[in-house]
Amino acid sequence: MRIDPDGLNQILRPIFDPKEKEKALKEGRLAAKGLNAGPGAASGKIVFNAEDAEAWAARGEQVILVRIETSPEDIRGMNAAQGILTARGGMTSHAALVARQMGKVCVAGVGELDIDYRKKTMSVKSNTVKEGDYVSLDGTTGEVFVGQVKTIPSEVLRVLVDKTLKPEASEVYQYFALVMQWADEARKLGVWTNADQPDQAAIAVAFGAEGIGLCRTEHMFFEGERIDAVREMIVAENVEGRKKALAKLLPMQKADFMGLFKVMHGLPVTIRTLDPPLHEFLPHTQKEIKELAAKMGIKASRLSLKIESLHEANPMLGHRGCRLGIVFPEITQMQAQAIFEAACEVKKSGVEVKPEIMIPLVGHVNELKLQKDVVDKAAIEVTKKYGVELHYTVGTMIEIPRAAITADEIAEVAEFFSFGTNDLTQTAFGMSRDDAGKFLRYYVEHDILQYDPFQRIDEGGVGKLMKIGVELGRKARPKLKIGICGEHGGEPNSVKFCHRIGLDYVSCSPYRVTLARLAAAQAAIQEKKG
Amino acid sequence: MRIDPDGLNQILRPIFDPKEKEKALKEGRLAAKGLNAGPGAASGKIVFNAEDAEAWAARGEQVILVRIETSPEDIRGMNAAQGILTARGGMTSHAALVARQMGKVCVAGVGELDIDYRKKTMSVKSNTVKEGDYVSLDGTTGEVFVGQVKTIPSEVLRVLVDKTLKPEASEVYQYFALVMQWADEARKLGVWTNADQPDQAAIAVAFGAEGIGLCRTEHMFFEGERIDAVREMIVAENVEGRKKALAKLLPMQKADFMGLFKVMHGLPVTIRTLDPPLHEFLPHTQKEIKELAAKMGIKASRLSLKIESLHEANPMLGHRGCRLGIVFPEITQMQAQAIFEAACEVKKSGVEVKPEIMIPLVGHVNELKLQKDVVDKAAIEVTKKYGVELHYTVGTMIEIPRAAITADEIAEVAEFFSFGTNDLTQTAFGMSRDDAGKFLRYYVEHDILQYDPFQRIDEGGVGKLMKIGVELGRKARPKLKIGICGEHGGEPNSVKFCHRIGLDYVSCSPYRVTLARLAAAQAAIQEKKG
Repeated sequence: MRIDPDGLNQILRPIFDPKEKEKALKEGRLAAKGLNAGPGAASGKIVFNAEDAEAWAARGEQVILVRIETSPEDIRGMNAAQGILTARGGMTSHAALVARQMGKVCVAGVGELDIDYRKKTMSVKSNTVKEGDYVSLDGTTGEVFVGQVKTIPSEVLRVLVDKTLKPEASEVYQYFALVMQWADEARKLGVWTNADQPDQAAIAVAFGAEGIGLCRTEHMFFEGERIDAVREMIVAENVEGRKKALAKLLPMQKADFMGLFKVMHGLPVTIRTLDPPLHEFLPHTQKEIKELAAKMGIKASRLSLKIESLHEANPMLGHRGCRLGIVFPEITQMQAQAIFEAACEVKKSGVEVKPEIMIPLVGHVNELKLQKDVVDKAAIEVTKKYGVELHYTVGTMIEIPRAAITADEIAEVAEFFSFGTNDLTQTAFGMSRDDAGKFLRYYVEHDILQYDPFQRIDEGGVGKLMKIGVELGRKARPKLKIGICGEHGGEPNSVKFCHRIGLDYVSCSPYRVTLARLAAAQAAIQEKKG
Repeated sequence: MRIDPDGLNQILRPIFDPKEKEKALKEGRLAAKGLNAGPGAASGKIVFNAEDAEAWAARGEQVILVRIETSPEDIRGMNAAQGILTARGGMTSHAALVARQMGKVCVAGVGELDIDYRKKTMSVKSNTVKEGDYVSLDGTTGEVFVGQVKTIPSEVLRVLVDKTLKPEASEVYQYFALVMQWADEARKLGVWTNADQPDQAAIAVAFGAEGIGLCRTEHMFFEGERIDAVREMIVAENVEGRKKALAKLLPMQKADFMGLFKVMHGLPVTIRTLDPPLHEFLPHTQKEIKELAAKMGIKASRLSLKIESLHEANPMLGHRGCRLGIVFPEITQMQAQAIFEAACEVKKSGVEVKPEIMIPLVGHVNELKLQKDVVDKAAIEVTKKYGVELHYTVGTMIEIPRAAITADEIAEVAEFFSFGTNDLTQTAFGMSRDDAGKFLRYYVEHDILQYDPFQRIDEGGVGKLMKIGVELGRKARPKLKIGICGEHGGEPNSVKFCHRIGLDYVSCSPYRVTLARLAAAQAAIQEKKG
């Protein structure tokens, strides 16, 4: 009960490779020391403002954001960076607080730093480095190195995931394992993970994940040549054209799912059907449109028209989620077929499989009914073809207020619920996460809201909708399995709330699984104490 | 009980000036006859597609939309037109159904029409008219005239509003008045109106409106030079700059409110503080930005930057409603001051006033608290200055799911509720009205939804939230006055639903007030019958 779950997470952070650090010290590259404001080690090219951090990171660079001090405008840049270095501010400065919350490496308050935003240079004593040069931060010691210092996984990680260290050899791992054992004995809440790829899933399992609570199939759509087939599908004039393009995607999706089923080895794998609006898959600048049109062998004007026709005033509230699968059932059909073919093949190879198909953005039970029909039909066809008996379930996300308050109707069809608290927060508050920056900070600073509801579940509002959803859902289907797969599933207070309202599991990103296990245990112990 | 409220509305539609019609007949301008698919008379310039109808109407033209037949893509053009004329289709064709629903004049299925979309011409026998020529439709008889035929208000309207006809002289008015008397005896629901201007309000009062349920102050912001002051306020760099610009708006807003208070003569006038996002007041094309910048005496680049900084990914869920008044309290302050100064002056002139200040988009009681503080402070200052005692109330819209489910907390502060069912439908469904065209039609056609929830209240979802809001609100404040000011307030089924869940009043557009009175009576009688 005395361990802060967020703190626990820190022993999973990367550290400097001891040899590399020793070398850097010998070479006199230790430039300065500041406050150890965000633990872990990070190395990257320096940038001097948040926009550059975002832009550089978007093109695949690892960057360290250097600021005299940070302010809320820098949030997205901080999120894009590997680490944050500031000249001013203490352990509770903006940079330090946000970095710890984000799990970013941070060295704060390095007073001897001389930062020149115009020239984009930073000097310590006689040492001057410029934008694009490497620096390396040790957020656990507060050390700042000039140049690159290689990082390696933390000791606990090397036991858990890397296997480069034996459990017996690591004292910190022993303690970690003991605490986790205690946590698992105490907790009632299952801890699953959000993972789209086998390697992510493998890490999560090493961290103790008991299933995949959210596999976002659209992430699979962006890779390599797949995006070409996706775009062909979107631009298709009719259902035949769409089916032709979808047929190209089928084997790739199937391979993805096989990978996940194999890694999860009989643990539940919750796969969400396509969610984002289609225009997210298309380019928006004239140059990109021209290039894509040439590649696709169609006129740029036709592609432009298609993109224009897909434009939405409020994409968050637009043609996405199950609304896509309903108007274009062939998309859901392809995804279901890929899931079941993968499941059959993996099962035939002797590995148990447990597919759970999750329909997003349901607001009315009829939407779920229609999509479940498509899924069930695909299941029958595929299992017949393979001669394999398969157990699977079809459920839905509860992420629209209407779904929460009609959860009894929806539970007549849904075999499980998973709260999508990111979208549920947006719709319950009528507040877009992308746009809330303009007022949400003001709200939190002026105590209008106690905390940012996108970081921690708003218990008084969004949480109330969740409670209604749980009560109504279980009234219609007493053994209904209910989880959460919004980002809140990895935030300790929210995990505890999920325990209190009787969810079966939380699903969070792999690196937050251990944290969630501990938070879940603390909630159960708290409850016992009364 | 046998009268269709929608049908009642038809006797309020304009008709041809009898003399003008006679003249047109003599001149042989009756070109054809079709089905009387949408009653009333209309005259305007013909356009051949929905986009043109919208564009021409936007620049102030009265247009008649001519189509071989209409389809759902034409909806916005139909709404922009005075009347609709089609060559194909019967009384239940798309054109006919939509026209009646929208209250548009429609002559459908004029088989002898020869429409050429390319040349933009329409011929009947040897008569050819082209785009921009006038035609006139009598949707009550199905007659199509070439050229202009002046319309006048209907007989009932001439008694009620125009006063050009004496009640005794009109038989139809006698029947109308009798039905309305019966309705008023039976109904329990109050019927108010949505009106932003004194002339609209006067019409509504003539139709029997018992108050203004929604005055949208932003509509007042677009007129004449006001928009300049509004833009100056938006572009201002600091609170002083904003206050300077707001000071220019104050006398204009005050004059608006005085006009409304005078017309309403002691009936409640519900004034909503600023609601739309600020970027709605700024131009978006490069040309307009240049022009405005020149006019404002600032650099186009600065104006562009400001516009860019106001851009939102999902404006529906962005920085609008009370979120504006909270971050910029000086806006609410100016509006409250204008309301109270207007109220004091009108009251001093001997006319009773009943201002009700309504805060939009509240999701958390703290938002309302802060805005109410600003309003109350302005009231104290103004009434002291004028030496007038004033009774006013401060309430809120319930248009965000979070507000409905925390209505008990909100009712501790709010003196009244008004359901904003347009936004509540958007947020409860997670569905943007602007973007829903891509799937909502499919949903209704395929019985996924029984009807379009933006036209009629979705009783099973949005209605459930309303019920929760009513119950919780009255639990905290038993005599809480509750109304509705979304467009549903003028739709008969929705009016009846509002009666059933115990609302105090519905507020609708002036021309739907009589319809709402009848629907409210029918709901009360139905209830008695059990």
